[in-house]
Amino acid sequence: MHFALIGCGRIGRVHAESIALHPRAELTRVCDAVEASAREVADRFGGVPGSDVDAVLADPAIDAVVIASPTPTHVDLLARAVEAGKAVLCEKPIDLDLARVDDCRARIGAAESRVMVGFNRRFDPSFRAVRERVATGEIGRLEQLIIVSRDPAPSPAEYLAGSGGLFRDMTIHDFDMARFFLGDVVEVSAMGSNLVADYIAELGDIDGAVVTLRGADGTLCHITNSRRCTFGYDQRLEAFGSLGMLSVDNLRPDGVRAFTAQSTESAAPYLDFFLDRYTPAYRAELDHFVQSILDDSAPEPGFEDGRAALVLADAAEESLRTGRAVAVDAAAATTAGGRR
Amino acid sequence: MHFALIGCGRIGRVHAESIALHPRAELTRVCDAVEASAREVADRFGGVPGSDVDAVLADPAIDAVVIASPTPTHVDLLARAVEAGKAVLCEKPIDLDLARVDDCRARIGAAESRVMVGFNRRFDPSFRAVRERVATGEIGRLEQLIIVSRDPAPSPAEYLAGSGGLFRDMTIHDFDMARFFLGDVVEVSAMGSNLVADYIAELGDIDGAVVTLRGADGTLCHITNSRRCTFGYDQRLEAFGSLGMLSVDNLRPDGVRAFTAQSTESAAPYLDFFLDRYTPAYRAELDHFVQSILDDSAPEPGFEDGRAALVLADAAEESLRTGRAVAVDAAAATTAGGRR
Amino acid sequence: MHFALIGCGRIGRVHAESIALHPRAELTRVCDAVEASAREVADRFGGVPGSDVDAVLADPAIDAVVIASPTPTHVDLLARAVEAGKAVLCEKPIDLDLARVDDCRARIGAAESRVMVGFNRRFDPSFRAVRERVATGEIGRLEQLIIVSRDPAPSPAEYLAGSGGLFRDMTIHDFDMARFFLGDVVEVSAMGSNLVADYIAELGDIDGAVVTLRGADGTLCHITNSRRCTFGYDQRLEAFGSLGMLSVDNLRPDGVRAFTAQSTESAAPYLDFFLDRYTPAYRAELDHFVQSILDDSAPEPGFEDGRAALVLADAAEESLRTGRAVAVDAAAATTAGGRR
Amino acid sequence: MHFALIGCGRIGRVHAESIALHPRAELTRVCDAVEASAREVADRFGGVPGSDVDAVLADPAIDAVVIASPTPTHVDLLARAVEAGKAVLCEKPIDLDLARVDDCRARIGAAESRVMVGFNRRFDPSFRAVRERVATGEIGRLEQLIIVSRDPAPSPAEYLAGSGGLFRDMTIHDFDMARFFLGDVVEVSAMGSNLVADYIAELGDIDGAVVTLRGADGTLCHITNSRRCTFGYDQRLEAFGSLGMLSVDNLRPDGVRAFTAQSTESAAPYLDFFLDRYTPAYRAELDHFVQSILDDSAPEPGFEDGRAALVLADAAEESLRTGRAVAVDAAAATTAGGRR
Repeated sequence: MHFALIGCGRIGRVHAESIALHPRAELTRVCDAVEASAREVADRFGGVPGSDVDAVLADPAIDAVVIASPTPTHVDLLARAVEAGKAVLCEKPIDLDLARVDDCRARIGAAESRVMVGFNRRFDPSFRAVRERVATGEIGRLEQLIIVSRDPAPSPAEYLAGSGGLFRDMTIHDFDMARFFLGDVVEVSAMGSNLVADYIAELGDIDGAVVTLRGADGTLCHITNSRRCTFGYDQRLEAFGSLGMLSVDNLRPDGVRAFTAQSTESAAPYLDFFLDRYTPAYRAELDHFVQSILDDSAPEPGFEDGRAALVLADAAEESLRTGRAVAVDAAAATTAGGRR
Repeated sequence: MHFALIGCGRIGRVHAESIALHPRAELTRVCDAVEASAREVADRFGGVPGSDVDAVLADPAIDAVVIASPTPTHVDLLARAVEAGKAVLCEKPIDLDLARVDDCRARIGAAESRVMVGFNRRFDPSFRAVRERVATGEIGRLEQLIIVSRDPAPSPAEYLAGSGGLFRDMTIHDFDMARFFLGDVVEVSAMGSNLVADYIAELGDIDGAVVTLRGADGTLCHITNSRRCTFGYDQRLEAFGSLGMLSVDNLRPDGVRAFTAQSTESAAPYLDFFLDRYTPAYRAELDHFVQSILDDSAPEPGFEDGRAALVLADAAEESLRTGRAVAVDAAAATTAGGRR
Repeated sequence: MHFALIGCGRIGRVHAESIALHPRAELTRVCDAVEASAREVADRFGGVPGSDVDAVLADPAIDAVVIASPTPTHVDLLARAVEAGKAVLCEKPIDLDLARVDDCRARIGAAESRVMVGFNRRFDPSFRAVRERVATGEIGRLEQLIIVSRDPAPSPAEYLAGSGGLFRDMTIHDFDMARFFLGDVVEVSAMGSNLVADYIAELGDIDGAVVTLRGADGTLCHITNSRRCTFGYDQRLEAFGSLGMLSVDNLRPDGVRAFTAQSTESAAPYLDFFLDRYTPAYRAELDHFVQSILDDSAPEPGFEDGRAALVLADAAEESLRTGRAVAVDAAAATTAGGRR
Repeated sequence: MHFALIGCGRIGRVHAESIALHPRAELTRVCDAVEASAREVADRFGGVPGSDVDAVLADPAIDAVVIASPTPTHVDLLARAVEAGKAVLCEKPIDLDLARVDDCRARIGAAESRVMVGFNRRFDPSFRAVRERVATGEIGRLEQLIIVSRDPAPSPAEYLAGSGGLFRDMTIHDFDMARFFLGDVVEVSAMGSNLVADYIAELGDIDGAVVTLRGADGTLCHITNSRRCTFGYDQRLEAFGSLGMLSVDNLRPDGVRAFTAQSTESAAPYLDFFLDRYTPAYRAELDHFVQSILDDSAPEPGFEDGRAALVLADAAEESLRTGRAVAVDAAAATTAGGRR
């Protein structure tokens, strides 16, 4: 299976490596507006480098396109790649503006089923194991989901200025995780805070938040976010049900524990960087994408999942602004239906 | 120091034992509407049994009164005991109705400083250690507080019918814990659920909830409650700050871990019963009360803390009903001021 | 049931408190060579103080005697108490010299069944739970037992000089624990070290050791000892069997964990003092003793268990001296037979 | 750097993958007595397949040879590869017979410094981190080392028959780990057991053991082995020192914990297969080998480390047979000197 990669930044390189390591995939074309970046990636992971997107999409040898370019370019590239008959794995978010996402959806129509959105955390072995064990009924009916998601340190102002705000940039992963467990969400309530960095407040953004969601079936979900966490990348989840609970601990670089006169069982700080923490998830994500092409099945999370997470981010923004819980119309938010 | 105990139910017996074990305290009078109950407690822990509250309050030998009678009797007994010149430790809640609490406050006036309210969890060694370590600055500025509080199993309908609802009966402990860490709370938002037992819904009550609070200084707090938890009495807390985090694990009856072909590190379910879990807290609570009398200082938590937690419960009810975040006027809610 | 306590040092006070708290027991006489010590204990926990052992043993009101006096006095007091018709709980070790223990055994004859030896760790809730779960077959056949036992800090030279050496003073608890799980032990091998304190070497004693035991049925056991452990009183055990493993973690004063930029999940140092760590064990030990008197059954661990642990300590000494594994004749070592 | 791989069994494939993934290394020749095996590995990881060792060693393009063929072939291949001027990474053990190892040593002489022995566990990130932190003095002087090493299930009789016995086949890794921490070992004492499988006893081998070592500087070390462990591949280590302890927990496939009415915090069984558990160690091992060639430095563990571990295995055999602690002459056992 021949892959083209569009966008050779940090996340693009992760995908390039996943493609290179996959036994069924080959990196055939590598594209970036800065051709030197494309060349660098091609040297390491294979493929013909270039900066011309048209040439990539016109190449009949290409089966699948991974879009890892800047967010504002996503919807157009996604639509064109689909129109060119390619399977598409598009990095999240599809776009920051729901109207543009809806335009894109109208444009691609039924071909939506060939699009996968890069919510990599669904493929984290621990989160996925919990999801699957919940589905088997191990903890009975799921009643409460608690998600803690904290970044080690805030991104710089330049990045945040174009990020769409905490909910669309960071919480969007947690909204998707909530939907992964709860299916449709019908109500969103949010509080935000500015405790981490002044420049974030100056951008009109928040740097911490607590968000409460209600699923269509009454399950409640709590999300806690922070842009700063001194002890590493804090990524935890608790699924609480009528028969028990499943939780996910953070991962550490090694299994060493220290015991001294001051403290016992001290472990190392958590893995700090999202690429380290989620490397296996990115690999598994690509594998699912490859498998969906081989099976001619719709990949999950799909376009509608990308759209639905954005709907929840918009609802959280509205709740933050109005101090009200915001009702979400599941039908309008997603035509894919719940996943439970 | 001579104690009288009024109310010899489950919680009254805990206090009787704490008094009997305290080197500075002596259980001198034991009173219950059912005299046989009083006699049973007196036989075990000392004191003269009886059913006449007037005789107890009129006894000049009595220095301090512990009120563990049914909630509707609290405000009157509290006021009368204070008027009789006794120090008072009153079980939570002071009352379910804020107007009655305010009447009581007006009645006792400045003597309020002689009243302690039985929010025992403040005296749990683990929670207290976290509170003290936060105060030393160990984790920098406190930014987020996450409280999980789940009962092993719901109380019967008869009890719940008079309980004032989940927020006033169960969450009230968590509201006090939030105030213990955040000081004044200025905003409350709540979602509830009915997933545990039909009879709770039939009573018009909820059996699970997620509540979000904002402190006067911007600190956010999340509370998760459930009336049922199969793996024991789930009582956890995370204090997250600019420099790190302090968390409290649940306690277990022993330190055994099992390793089998199915699982590893399996520990026993948590201590199931609140009296087991919080025995040291009840002991320390009484000790603080004794100490405050010896020092002639105002005990903490005091009357205003009892009132403020009820204000938050009322606000949570309103948020549940209206779907809005409810602003709390700190000045109206409490004259004691923040505690940080 | 009327108790006399002989010996009012540190460990004597623990027993005094256990007796005072036991609903079926009463502390009736308190005896110490230093009468002021006896008086102090009597003031706190009840009983008539005194320094005359004869008077204690002659008192027909006394049902049971707890011997917590210095080790060299044990055998004589034990024999006399038994001869006076009392049930006896004697602190470990019975004596440091096997010949004196055997003389005592000959003297008391069949009345041995009224003697309990104070190996309190058998009554630790965690160790006991493991023992009971092993007995149910939860981990199949027990194959390997690993005991780690380290003191926070070495005792002073004056104490150690009369202690009989590390094996008879400290490891003796672990020898008993090994027998609690393995029954008869048939082979002992030991290595020692002097790494902690020069004065211990100057006394001709060791301050660290590793000991290997083989049970009569082939089960192997490892014991690791140290006289110094900076992170607290390190008392752990792993029972490994054909179907799994049960292990015992150390206990901590609270359930707090700290997370910082330097480390995560840091807990407090372990409980430091053996009296704190084993308080519940001492209570349960006394309760078993009381129960055995009520049932007129032989308490466990009995006199032979005290003797057998000393036999193993002697064997370890011999192994240390000779560099050979030492065979232990189970029949000679104990007539009580294995306990599995 | 051009690599040849000799031996394409299970462990040979691990090395092939490590070479293929290493940015500085290339798999140029792949050799196995069964040419089809060589071809299969070459197809996947590159290189020219073949069954002719002479051709491999004669190829001037080859810089380094990895020997992963059956143990009896090691010494001859190792010597010939060294004589052909290649750097050599030889799987453990060098040979089961110390005399043959010594002959090989005499044959290769000073070229010994170009030989690395495949004790992969030294490169496990957790064990290595402990080793490095001990070296910094974090726990003061190392006093006791406890190693637990249990295989998930015994190898079949055919394999065990030629394995040289538990000490030379399995414990040899732990002997090397002991030397990694203690340097020279001067005394070995061992007990064995037959509790796992009858066919192992019939082979004259043991299936469980406890071994005690004394380092030249007095540090004590305990090793516990079993051929069967139902809960996975149990690989733990505790380094206990004058200032504290560092321990290594086992690794699990995910970070999920389960909480039910029966148990809490249950994690998954440990990684079961040594290749899963030690994948990062094999990668790091190869990287160290590559680096030593680039630096023209002697790799560690070297030939003498391979020999010294075998000396300890022989000593453990002798102790098992004689029931005596066996003195090891460090000078005779190893000329490399301690590593601390």
